[in-house]
Parts: sequence; structure tokens; C-alpha cells
Amino acid sequence: MNYEVVDTLISPEGRLEVLSKAEVAKLLDTSQGGLYNIFRKCALAVLNCGSSIDDGKELLERYSSFEISIIQRERGIKLDIRGAPSIAFVDGKMIKGIHEHLFAVLRDIVYVHFEVTDNPKFNLAKPEGITDAVFHIMRNANILQPQRNPNLVVCWGGHSINRVEYNYSKQVGYALGLRELDICTGCGPGAMKGPMKGAAIGHSKQRLAVGRYLGISEPGIIAAESPNPIVNDLVIMPDIEKRLEAFVRTGHGIVVFPGGAGTAEEILYILGILLHPDNAEMPFPLIFTGPATAREYFEQIDDFIAQTLGVRAQARYKIIIDDPDAVAREMQAGIKQVREFRKARSDAYYFNWLLKIDHEFQKPFKPTHENMRNLSLHKNQETHLLAANLRRAFSGVVAGNVKEEGIREIEKHGKYEIHGDSDIMVPMDALLASFVEQSRMKLPGKAYVPCYTIVQ
Amino acid sequence: MNYEVVDTLISPEGRLEVLSKAEVAKLLDTSQGGLYNIFRKCALAVLNCGSSIDDGKELLERYSSFEISIIQRERGIKLDIRGAPSIAFVDGKMIKGIHEHLFAVLRDIVYVHFEVTDNPKFNLAKPEGITDAVFHIMRNANILQPQRNPNLVVCWGGHSINRVEYNYSKQVGYALGLRELDICTGCGPGAMKGPMKGAAIGHSKQRLAVGRYLGISEPGIIAAESPNPIVNDLVIMPDIEKRLEAFVRTGHGIVVFPGGAGTAEEILYILGILLHPDNAEMPFPLIFTGPATAREYFEQIDDFIAQTLGVRAQARYKIIIDDPDAVAREMQAGIKQVREFRKARSDAYYFNWLLKIDHEFQKPFKPTHENMRNLSLHKNQETHLLAANLRRAFSGVVAGNVKEEGIREIEKHGKYEIHGDSDIMVPMDALLASFVEQSRMKLPGKAYVPCYTIVQ
Amino acid sequence: MNYEVVDTLISPEGRLEVLSKAEVAKLLDTSQGGLYNIFRKCALAVLNCGSSIDDGKELLERYSSFEISIIQRERGIKLDIRGAPSIAFVDGKMIKGIHEHLFAVLRDIVYVHFEVTDNPKFNLAKPEGITDAVFHIMRNANILQPQRNPNLVVCWGGHSINRVEYNYSKQVGYALGLRELDICTGCGPGAMKGPMKGAAIGHSKQRLAVGRYLGISEPGIIAAESPNPIVNDLVIMPDIEKRLEAFVRTGHGIVVFPGGAGTAEEILYILGILLHPDNAEMPFPLIFTGPATAREYFEQIDDFIAQTLGVRAQARYKIIIDDPDAVAREMQAGIKQVREFRKARSDAYYFNWLLKIDHEFQKPFKPTHENMRNLSLHKNQETHLLAANLRRAFSGVVAGNVKEEGIREIEKHGKYEIHGDSDIMVPMDALLASFVEQSRMKLPGKAYVPCYTIVQ
Amino acid sequence: MNYEVVDTLISPEGRLEVLSKAEVAKLLDTSQGGLYNIFRKCALAVLNCGSSIDDGKELLERYSSFEISIIQRERGIKLDIRGAPSIAFVDGKMIKGIHEHLFAVLRDIVYVHFEVTDNPKFNLAKPEGITDAVFHIMRNANILQPQRNPNLVVCWGGHSINRVEYNYSKQVGYALGLRELDICTGCGPGAMKGPMKGAAIGHSKQRLAVGRYLGISEPGIIAAESPNPIVNDLVIMPDIEKRLEAFVRTGHGIVVFPGGAGTAEEILYILGILLHPDNAEMPFPLIFTGPATAREYFEQIDDFIAQTLGVRAQARYKIIIDDPDAVAREMQAGIKQVREFRKARSDAYYFNWLLKIDHEFQKPFKPTHENMRNLSLHKNQETHLLAANLRRAFSGVVAGNVKEEGIREIEKHGKYEIHGDSDIMVPMDALLASFVEQSRMKLPGKAYVPCYTIVQ
Repeated sequence: MNYEVVDTLISPEGRLEVLSKAEVAKLLDTSQGGLYNIFRKCALAVLNCGSSIDDGKELLERYSSFEISIIQRERGIKLDIRGAPSIAFVDGKMIKGIHEHLFAVLRDIVYVHFEVTDNPKFNLAKPEGITDAVFHIMRNANILQPQRNPNLVVCWGGHSINRVEYNYSKQVGYALGLRELDICTGCGPGAMKGPMKGAAIGHSKQRLAVGRYLGISEPGIIAAESPNPIVNDLVIMPDIEKRLEAFVRTGHGIVVFPGGAGTAEEILYILGILLHPDNAEMPFPLIFTGPATAREYFEQIDDFIAQTLGVRAQARYKIIIDDPDAVAREMQAGIKQVREFRKARSDAYYFNWLLKIDHEFQKPFKPTHENMRNLSLHKNQETHLLAANLRRAFSGVVAGNVKEEGIREIEKHGKYEIHGDSDIMVPMDALLASFVEQSRMKLPGKAYVPCYTIVQ
Repeated sequence: MNYEVVDTLISPEGRLEVLSKAEVAKLLDTSQGGLYNIFRKCALAVLNCGSSIDDGKELLERYSSFEISIIQRERGIKLDIRGAPSIAFVDGKMIKGIHEHLFAVLRDIVYVHFEVTDNPKFNLAKPEGITDAVFHIMRNANILQPQRNPNLVVCWGGHSINRVEYNYSKQVGYALGLRELDICTGCGPGAMKGPMKGAAIGHSKQRLAVGRYLGISEPGIIAAESPNPIVNDLVIMPDIEKRLEAFVRTGHGIVVFPGGAGTAEEILYILGILLHPDNAEMPFPLIFTGPATAREYFEQIDDFIAQTLGVRAQARYKIIIDDPDAVAREMQAGIKQVREFRKARSDAYYFNWLLKIDHEFQKPFKPTHENMRNLSLHKNQETHLLAANLRRAFSGVVAGNVKEEGIREIEKHGKYEIHGDSDIMVPMDALLASFVEQSRMKLPGKAYVPCYTIVQ
Repeated sequence: MNYEVVDTLISPEGRLEVLSKAEVAKLLDTSQGGLYNIFRKCALAVLNCGSSIDDGKELLERYSSFEISIIQRERGIKLDIRGAPSIAFVDGKMIKGIHEHLFAVLRDIVYVHFEVTDNPKFNLAKPEGITDAVFHIMRNANILQPQRNPNLVVCWGGHSINRVEYNYSKQVGYALGLRELDICTGCGPGAMKGPMKGAAIGHSKQRLAVGRYLGISEPGIIAAESPNPIVNDLVIMPDIEKRLEAFVRTGHGIVVFPGGAGTAEEILYILGILLHPDNAEMPFPLIFTGPATAREYFEQIDDFIAQTLGVRAQARYKIIIDDPDAVAREMQAGIKQVREFRKARSDAYYFNWLLKIDHEFQKPFKPTHENMRNLSLHKNQETHLLAANLRRAFSGVVAGNVKEEGIREIEKHGKYEIHGDSDIMVPMDALLASFVEQSRMKLPGKAYVPCYTIVQ
Repeated sequence: MNYEVVDTLISPEGRLEVLSKAEVAKLLDTSQGGLYNIFRKCALAVLNCGSSIDDGKELLERYSSFEISIIQRERGIKLDIRGAPSIAFVDGKMIKGIHEHLFAVLRDIVYVHFEVTDNPKFNLAKPEGITDAVFHIMRNANILQPQRNPNLVVCWGGHSINRVEYNYSKQVGYALGLRELDICTGCGPGAMKGPMKGAAIGHSKQRLAVGRYLGISEPGIIAAESPNPIVNDLVIMPDIEKRLEAFVRTGHGIVVFPGGAGTAEEILYILGILLHPDNAEMPFPLIFTGPATAREYFEQIDDFIAQTLGVRAQARYKIIIDDPDAVAREMQAGIKQVREFRKARSDAYYFNWLLKIDHEFQKPFKPTHENMRNLSLHKNQETHLLAANLRRAFSGVVAGNVKEEGIREIEKHGKYEIHGDSDIMVPMDALLASFVEQSRMKLPGKAYVPCYTIVQ
């Protein structure tokens, strides 16, 4: 099958980019240590926005002739793009939002490589060093804006949700937008797009010219969750753990919509952190919500949490069914508490320094078959560490489902085997099965073949 | 039944207003020549935005305790508002878009009264004088912006349309917005809101911070068609004929969605003008469009035009079914021709001075029972004059359906009688009957009682 | 002698102008009732900025071939200019500040003619009607900005001052600018330019991008006092009395530098108003200041006021010699009182509605020989009326010195004769003689021939 | 003697600063490797702006109680300042321009330390590494703006010049500003302030709200040449050589006014670079200019160049006496050539990558007595290398005159001895003697004691 492609030459718009000669050379370097491959992969993902494909490997194969290079001109750089998906263009002209995203990708890849990775100032083996790196990448992307009041609502949820759930996520976004709250998501389709669309209408009615739609991605997931062009602040973190840390350090509250394995990973991440004893006093509004049809879904989630992390975890979130205004009011009230808490401690509104994140949640987890097999999934450990391990299990399932690398692993070695005590494995099996049944694992249209086996 | 109301005090935002003492006095003057009544009526309509009511008389009765007054302060005026519909507020705070609309209403009422109505510089008895007044009101509202390229698409269509038609109008708006075209409508719900919502998303993807959503209303219709808050440029013309002239002199092309009597009035207005011999050469893109389910509807309209105005009228529009991108591309191509035409003649991009509008289309028509009875509805006249009279007939039906004054007339004197030759009356009767049948006359929820009888 | 001239075609910049066909026609109309002559005269004055000429008649004769016309284009009007003074251009390109001034002139001439002069809403025979006209012209020129705190300092003083006085006026402007105060002047050279230059540097150090340099002129004086291009808000009032009213209603305090007959006129105007019993309580900071060398000059002025208006008048101003910081601090303190006074009474910060201006100060005074001869210059009247008549006497001297019409009158009928009681005439004679001696009547370089005789 | 001081607490304005915890800790670290001392020294220099002191050591002693610390707050950092020179304040409030400079200092010190000094990406032992560091520091300070046309004129000249020369430098600045050229200087008083003041007036007449006044300093010189608050882009380079490189890579042409040893250093720097064979084809407008009274001064300079660097060096500059408009026109024409040259080679407008700067001009030169004694000042070397050594000799004299460290060295070890061939030493001695005689070495008011001896 052939896919329509476009060639074009574009200059930076919005935030301009000025690159040094060394930076350009590194970006065009296709050798092992060079940046070309990662840049090309992320750029292609950005350009594929809006198409119904959530398979990183398929994307690369589909546009195998895609090329991107950098040209120095008297007014700065230009990007020379060949074989780009035509979906990024309207009548042959690239959509400006996508155009901006390409330069955001460029900015973050250059910064991470040149100023973070090998800079001895960042000790990436230590928790503080990792947090410092997250801070610097966000600051360089101009995400940390000290003059704003806390108002950033992170919206999590599945990329593959049904029409009713999608419309509901728009209504919640609209209710948040009318209250002048901004939106942050993982920047794909579904529950990551709906709230932004709704908020855009709400902001427009409130004449908020500066409404903020922040998308946080990472090179592994971006192909499956292309940033939609409403996103007007895009940042590419180096890995999934820094992406999760970026969400919880810059967002002021979280709304969770229905989703699949990725959403479960995110829920376990935030609950694991909030369960850490050091965070006991910290306000952090966390709301699970969906339309009436999603009531049962959240009962399952709630059950799963009850059975694995227990009642203390359940105390950290509220479930609100079918009431967008109530969600927005609850979030607004919660963020007010966040504001007071930080003010009282002189902690920055734009970066939650005080949140304790255990090293276990920061260390990059590589979902090899071996690592998956060896996860400690039993109750004989502190609850927040169990959460960390459960998080890794779901993270592996996401990789096997939609990430290029994960898919290749599964093709090579077969399904991941997930072991554990049966009082955890039984509810986990049930939860994953329900995700499959409800088509939450992949975009509709293909039969889903699980990438995991639960071994009790 | 009781309706929730709110009291508040607001200052100008966005464009600021500075009033003289004489102007404030006149606005608060409740006597015959004073401006209080009209100001109160329009302000109430603006505040009622978003509620499902399309009956000017009912609105006034529902909020009979509503009051608005003007207070002079050291930083300019404030509005003291009592008994306002709670729908204009989010958690007790007025939506900013509505807030701005209140001051737009104020601005236009003051300007029309102080600088137009009795100013001898405007000879309102002559065509040029009327056009000059339209020009000045638009200029004072800052609508005429010389640095913009022609890109303003007027969208007409019913306030009462079904879900499928509404979603389609959003898709067309999105396709227009992606192409950086702006939207102008009569500023009510339905086909007047959908294209703006769609365009807002399209503009946001193209990073058009200055996307323009122009609403043009008049005191008689505003209660039935409250401006939705996305409208970021609102102008209140003094009467329906100047409102129509404002549409065709500032817009660069027109898209017509399905609608009822009001939409028919608008179609007859623009066709009557384009049929004037002086306008034979003038490019003016005019597209009728709807989803697949509206195909039959447009066949009816097309038939009616064929039978009354003939094939020359049919040559001035295109019908495009179920293809938003084609509509947008066609409009863009048409506007390009408009641009070339004006450039070649040094005619302003922001005001179509060259369009000939016959005095018959400019004279305010008062839909009394007598005037309605005496309309010349026969083919023994020039086609564009027949169009003018047909326009008046439909205008009367709109008044009888939704305008405060019209409804009171019907209550007092019974239905309008519309006379004419049967080769006109038969298709007109059929068309109106189909509007009734398809619920296009009034918002759903009430049984529609026709305000007219066709007498052949 | 030949003067270098330039031809050019310019479009509006800064604030854009959109004119109707009727307005363009009237502007190009060279007949009696047309606006061409006044527009041409003011435009020429604006273009002559910076040259050392203060004689309205000579200017017109020097550039007799100067022509200006208006061309309609698709993006609005352009001005076609022939035979313009080359001083308005840098390397053939018009200085942007001057460019903007041309369009300000256009705006005000059109507005005054179309919306004020014959509009029955303004009763120009009554004090309130005149004030209302002043308000509307200022509002139309966008001068009245409700969100600003009171901070506008009017600087009066001579156009012909020496280097030491000029540098001092810059230092005062700098001290005002550092305190974020804005400047308003009559917009010619000398004491009308120095404070703006100084304030521009002060504002730049305080990063005030929106520093305001307001110039208020009128068609009679503009040729002798061309607006310097730092002026970024220019308004042309229809006559000298409305210009003076504009100063005192929009300014929040006044600094008077040394000057000649015009400065004396201004001092008498403001003192006459402040002496009105209704204004007894109104705070109005009024400071006379100059370098050490000007000490004697202000003693003379102070003496003259003592002898004519008496000690109550002297109580309304302070004299500060050679201390720019003290002037700025005093002004800042005075304006603080103005702010409190207005706030307490809800009077606008941007327009001093509460200031009582007697009709005698508003009626246009035409300095014919007869009118000058018949002035009531005696103490047998209320002090503020004596001030009004003294104001007229000095106003006539200004006209005879520098205004086109006045100069022609003097050429035709000889010197003005000024009659009055000797206890007024003696000090007046002395004061005028000292102005002559100090070269304050005309720019240096020509011998000054008095245009008046004092008859005791 | 006591100096008036002020305590205050300020927040970032203009560009906001967000610091990480590690950065704040390092800035407050007073130990050897900490940044506190350099930050305190530069901050004090910025606050002392406008006072007549050009002695880094004296400044530190005068305000020995000065302290600055950083406080983390919920909206970002604040600076807590104690014992600051009162000259930085107007009525107790810090001048905004100075306020901004403090944060610029902070930004550059943090960036250089954290991202440049120890980052292995920059090989500071190699020419390209040094250039890359200069590029990154400028980029981080937001100086490199790709959308601007080349228009940045570097103005060099003495901090101690007489009134006539100062006024002339203002006139040149005005002529440049009227032509919409921007100004870059070393940011002290005298010839570094005059052109900015003049340009500010010129820009204001041309309505250039974004006129740019770039100051480039370094920690050693900043105390003697405090940035004046008109500077609206300030960057602190780590040493004098990188500062000089920043001038010539970002400026598009250079105007040299009269000056002393520092000006001679700058002239030798740029001539040495332009004499490099690789730069033979590169256009680089270089103009020496002053009022009529400075004619002799430039003849001396010209002579000195003729005798040391020869006629090829003389061909790279023009001397224009007493003609500001000619200077501006010549500069404009020169910059046009620069633009064409870069466009033809796709070299950036905002950074002159193509200019070859020999490593000898980049290596930091430390003016110890030994280094000064060992300079190779003879003609037996390539001319551009002789220029490099002469540059070092004058650099040492500057250090001995005004830099804290240099002054301490001289106090400890006596005068520098400068050796060399007599055909170089004789003219050098004469030139330095004339600088002394004309009071160009230090601000007036103190007797100048030379810090050097010429040994032939």
C-alpha cells in the first residue's frame, strides 16, 4: 500500500531556533552516537499526527523514505523535509501547530544531548540529579513560568476510547477551560485530545489568548501518540520515567479518564508516589471521571487498587461519574489548596520541588523479557514499592502493544511472562482482560493479540 | 416558574469605553426618546446566550425584574446589573465573552443615536446615505481593518437545525479555519454557532491568535439569536436591512447551511442583489451546503429559486453536499477572485463599495398585517424586485415567529395573510410547509403554530 | 531663495485610517466649505517640523507648490504628497513620527467637520456643549485612556528660549520621566520639546515602552509650532480656546518654563480658571521653574500677577529655581492629591469634568483690531474675568507675532492698540518689553518689530 | 567618607528567571569554587551606574557592606539586597533598567558556570571551542535574533571624553537611530553612553519600540564601566577576549570615537583580525569619527597605525571628521555589503561565523608583570600577530588603570615595564603620552599616575 507524501522546506516559526555549527553537525550525524535517528523518528511521529495508527514500528515502515535535514541560512536554520505524511498539510502547506512541534522536538533533542546527558553537573545516578535534569529540560522548553498561578490540570486516559467517552472528555475540558484552567496531557488522540478541544472553546469564550495546552512525550511513545496540533507547548523528555516525573512536578492536579494499560501505569505511578510517607501531608487533587457508561470501568479500577494497594491508596482519589462541572469545581478547589500549601512553604508554583519521588520510580525501566519476568509482584514489601513494580508491569505491556522497540522484542521472543502472588495476579489478569474486551489496548480496527501472559 | 438570576457590577474589558455625561444621561433615560429600553432589551439578550429560547417576548417576560444601569467611576464607567440570567456566569463570574458583548451593545447604541440618527451628514432617505451609515457604524465598531486580506466568510443557516447538520457545520468551519479564513454569522445558535466552533479549533491548530468571529445582529432579532461568546467582534446594526447590508459589504463570500424562513430571507436578499444588472460582473462566492441528509432540502430550495427567480439566479450559487474540504477550497478560490477584482478597481478589501444595492433592499420593511397583505408577489416585475418582495414576505414570517413585536402583532390581529400569483404562492406554500415539517421554524420542544396563511 | 522639496506616496502607519467616500470628497474639496485648505495648511506645518521658522505666513509662501491628495486603494487610503519640505525625510524616507502626525491631522479634521461642527447633538453656544465637543475630539483621538493612573504633566513655556533654559527643560523632563510621569505640550520647539526629550531618556531607563508624549495644537498655531516627532499622540483642536481647555481637562498638573506672550496667555488662562470660586477646593499642581539664570524672569512674572490678579492668584503656584528633582517630586505629590480628589468624587482620571471653566474662557476670541481695542482691562470686575481679558490681550499679541492671519491683519491695519487702566497697563507694558528684550517673542535671527502699542 | 546606601527586595522583571536549587546553592556559595564573589562584584558594579568612579578597587572598598542574596519564593526567586548605592534608585525605588541588569548578570554567571565552564562539549583549548562558547553565551542571553536584518553598530571610544566629543557621539547616535540602526557598546559612560542616548531619540522619532541597546561587558571591566540603564540587552562574557569576540561576531560594523588605552586595544584587535589573510575579502565597515576638535587625535592614531601595522591596515578604516550624517550613511552602505556577503554565503546575519579569529586573539591574556615584560613587540613577525601583541600591551595598561586586579598588582609590584623595538616603542610612547595629556586614561578629577614605563 502506498501513502501520500509531501516534500517541503520550512523555517522556524513561533519560537525561533538558532543552532551552532557543532549542533547541526551532531543532528545530521547518522552514526551510532549521532542524533539523526532519534530526531528523524520523533519528527516523523509529529508529522503523522491525526492519522489512526498507534504502532511505532508500522509508522517507520510505512514512511521508510522519510528524510529530514537542516540547512543553515542567513536568518537561521531551515528544515528540508522529504517524504512527509501528507496528513500534516492543508493544501500543500504544513499546519502551523505541527510546524512548531518539529522545532520543539529539535530543541529538546539538542538540549538533552548537549547540555544534560554528558554534562558532569547532572549526576543522573542520584534522585536529585534526575530531578534537576527534569527541571532543566522543562526550563529550557520555557515551560516553567513563575508569574502564573497554579492552574495546570494533567489529563490522563486512553488513546483508544469510544465516542461517548471522548465527548465526555471534551465536556470536562470545556468546564475546566471556562474556569481558566490549563490542560496538560501525554499529547496523543482520545482522552489526550478531547480535554484540549473542549478547553480551547472554553478559553475562547473567556478570551484567554494565552490558554496553555502542554504536551509531554518521550521518543518511545511519541510515534503511537502523536501530539495533536492544539498542543502549543510540547516537550520531549528523554524517557518514560522523566516524562512521568515532568507530569507530576509541573501539573497541579490530575484528572484520569478511562484508558488501558498506559492509564493503569499512570495511576500506579501517582498513587505510589502519594503513598510515600513523606508525601502524606501534600495536597494533590486526583479525580477519576467518565460518563455514566464508564461507571463500571472505574469500579473495576477501584477494586483493583483496593485489592493491591489498599484503602490508604483509595483515600487519595475521588471518583466522579457524569458531571463535568463537578469535576472542574473539585479540581479548582483542590488546586486552591495546592496554592496555599506551596505559598506557606515558599515552594515554586511552577515546579513541585517538595514532592518526594522514590528512586524506584525514577530509574528507567527497560521492558526486556528478563526484567518483566523478574518483577517483584507480592505484598511482602512496602506498598509504594509494590506500586512501583506494578507500574513497571503495565509499562511493559504498553511497550509490547505500541512501542517500536517493544513490538520488535515480542516478535523475537514471544509474549512477556508476568509472575507474582496470586492475590495480585488474579485481579491484574481480570483488569487486563477487561481492557482487551473493551478495546482499550489498541485503536479499533485490528484484532488485539496480547503481548503478555499472566503466570500465577 | 422561576429562573435563577445574578446581580453583578462589571467594568469594561477588552476594548474600553469612555462615555460623556450626556451619553450616560441618555442611556439611563427611560422616557420615549431615551435609550434605556433598547439598551436593556439588547443587554438581556446578550446575557441569555446559550439558553434554549428563541422568543423575544418570552425572554422579556421571563426576566421582568432585569435592570441595568451605568455608574461613572474614576477609571470610566461600570455597569450595575440586577436580575441577570445565571446562564451568563460560571461560578458567579460573568463569562468574559459575554462581558465584552455587553459593552459592544453599549457602544453601538450610543454611536447610532449620537452620531448617526439625527446627524444631518447622513441622508438616510437616500441609498448612499444608508450605505454611509452602515459604513460608519462598522468603522466605529472597529470592524473595517484595512491591513487584512479578504478572508471573511459569512455563514448563514437556521438556528434550529438537527445534530447531524450541526456537526456538519462544525466540520465546514474547521475546514475554513484550517485555511485561515474567518467567520461571520448572525450570531445565534445552530448554523450560526457550529462554523465558529469548528473554525476556532482550525485557527488554534494554525496558531492564529487573531482569528475573527464576527457577529452582526440587530435589536429585533438579538433576543431570538443571542450572540454566542465565541463571537469576538459583535456589532448591533439599527435594523434588519442594515444588518443584511453589513453582511454583504464586509463579507467576501457566503456559505448557506440548511435553515428556515430567516435563511430563505437571506438567500433572496443576496440573490436579488446579485441579479441587479450592475452586479453582473462582480465575483461573489455563494455556496449552499449540508450533510448527505440535507440533499433533499437543497433540492427544494433550488426548485423554489428556479420557479420564482429563474435560471439566472441559479447560476450565482453552487450546491455542495457532504464535502467540507470542497466547500473550503471553493470558497478560497472564490475569495481569490474577489481580491483580484477589488485590487484591479482599487476598491477596499474591507468594504464592498462597488456592490450595487437597490433602494428596495435598503428601505426598512415593517411587517404590519397591512404591509404583508399588500406585497407585490407576481412575475410582472423585474426579477430583482420580485426577490425584494419575496424577501419581505419571509422577513415577516420570521418576525411573526420569533420577534417580540411580531409575536405581539400576531396575538392581536391573527395570522398574516400573504397574497400573490399562484405560480409563486404554490411553491412558497410548499417551501414553508416543509420548513414546518422539518422543525426549522422554531427551536424544538414546542408545537409550531404558523403565523401566516398563504392566499392564492 | 529655493527650498528643497520631496514628492512621496504614503500609507497609514500606526493607527490606520479608513475613510468613507463622502469624507474623501470633502477633504479634496477646495471650495469655501471644503476642507482642503485647512488640511493642506496643517499637513505642511507637520512636515516642516524641526526647521527654524515660526511664521505661519512665511511657511505657506515658502512652499507654495506644496500639494497633498488622497487616493483610495484596496487596503485603504494613501496620501500623495508633492513639494514637501525635505526636512521631514531621512535619505528620502519620511520620518515615521511625522508620517503618523499627518494621519492624526487627517483624523481630527475629518472628525471635527463630520461629527462635531454641524451635529445638533453639540450645542456649541453653551459651556457644556463646548466641553462635550472637547471631550469627543479627545476621545476620538484615543487620548482618554481610563486604565491609566493620573500622570500627565503639561509643560508650557516659550518656543524661543536660550540654550541654558532648553537644557534645563530637558533635565526636568528627565526627572519627570524617571518618575514615570508623561508629558503633554503645545508641541513646538524650545520648552515644548526639551521636556519630551528628557522624559524619553527617563522612560527608556524605566523601560516604559508606552511613555506618552501628547501634543495638543490647533490650525492657527501649528505652523509656528510644528509638532516634533517625539510626540506620539497628536490632536488638533479646532481653535485656541478648545486647545487650552484640552490641556487643563486632560493634564493632571502644569509646569511652566520661561516663555513669551504665549506663555503669559497660558498662565493667565489657568490662573483665571483656578480663581473661579467653584474651583477653590480643587487641587491642581502648578509650578513655575527655570535654571538659575531665569530667577529674575519669574520674579517679573510673579510681580505682574501680584499687581493684576493679586495674592490669591499667587497662592495657586510655586516657583522652584534650578532644581529638576524638586520639581518632579512636587509634581508627583500634587498629582497624588489630584488622584485622591477625583477618586473621592468618582470623577474620571482621564478628563477633569469637575473643573469649572467660565464661558468667558471658552468663547473663541478673534483678535481683530476692534476686538483688541475694546478689551476691558480694568480692576472693576471679578478677578477671574480680568484674567480672561488679559488672556485675550496676550492671545492677540501671539497672533500678531506668529499666526498667518494675525500677521496679515497687522500688515493691513498696523499695530494693535491695547487700552486699559494704568495700574494694569504699566506692568503689562513692562512685561512685554522684557519679553522683547530677552528675545522671547520670535525665534532668534530677525529683529522683532512689536505688533502692539500699549495705550494707557 | 560615607556613601548613601539602600536596602531592597526585588523580583525579576522583563525576562524572568527560574533557578534550580543547585544553582541557588552555588550562587550563595562564598567558598573558593562558589559564585558569590563574582556575582556580588558584578551586581555592585551594575548598581553603581551613573556615578563618576572608574576604579574597580575603590568601588568595592566604598561599598564594603554591600550584600546580595537569593530567596526562593512560590513565584520564583527574589534578590535581597543590602547596602546598595543610592544612585540606582529614584525616590527609593530601583530604576527598572538597573533592575533588569541585575538579572542579566545572574543569568550569565549561572549559565557560564553550569553549562559552559566544565561541560566537556566545549573544548576551550581550541579556537572553535572558544567561538562555540561565545555563541552559546550570546544565544542563552537571547542576543542572537535570526529574524532581524543586519543593523547592529558597535560603538567604541573612551569612557573619559570631553563635553564636545560626548555631544558629537550623541549626534552620531541620533543619525544612526534615525536610520533604524541599533547600537552596541561596552556599556560604560562617555562614548559608550552618548550614541545610545542619541539613538534613543532617533528611534523614538521613527517609532521603533524595539530599538536595541546592547551592552557587552566582562567581570573585570564592569566596575569601571557600569552599564548605563538605557542598555536593554546586557551580556556578561567571562573574559576580555570573549567580550571582544562577541563584539565582532554580533556587530555588523564599528564606529570608533576618541578614547584612551581601551580604545587603542579595541582598534588593534579589530585591525589585527581584519589583517588575517582569510578575512581579506570580508566586508567590515570601520569608521573613526569625532568632532572637529578631534581631528588631530585621529591623525595621531592613524600615524601610529601607519608606523606599526602599515598601509594595509590603514585601508580597512575611514576617518570622518565632524559629519554625523556622513558617518551614518557610510555605515548603512557598509552594512548593506555585509548583508549581501552573508546572504551569498548563507552565513548567519546574527553571528559572523566566517570571520577568522586567530587563536592568539582568543587566548585570555593575564597582565602580570612578567607577561607584560615578555610581549613580542617587534616587526619580525606577521603583522596580525604584531597587532595581537600590541593589543595585549594596551590591555595591560587598561587593567593597571581601572581594573581591581590590575590596580592591586601595580600597588604591589610597581609599574609594568613594556619592552620592544624602538620603531614601535617610540610611537607607542608618544600615543600613550598624548592620552595622558588629554585626560583619556581616567575620569577627570584625579591626577593620573601612569601604570607603565616604556623601555626602548
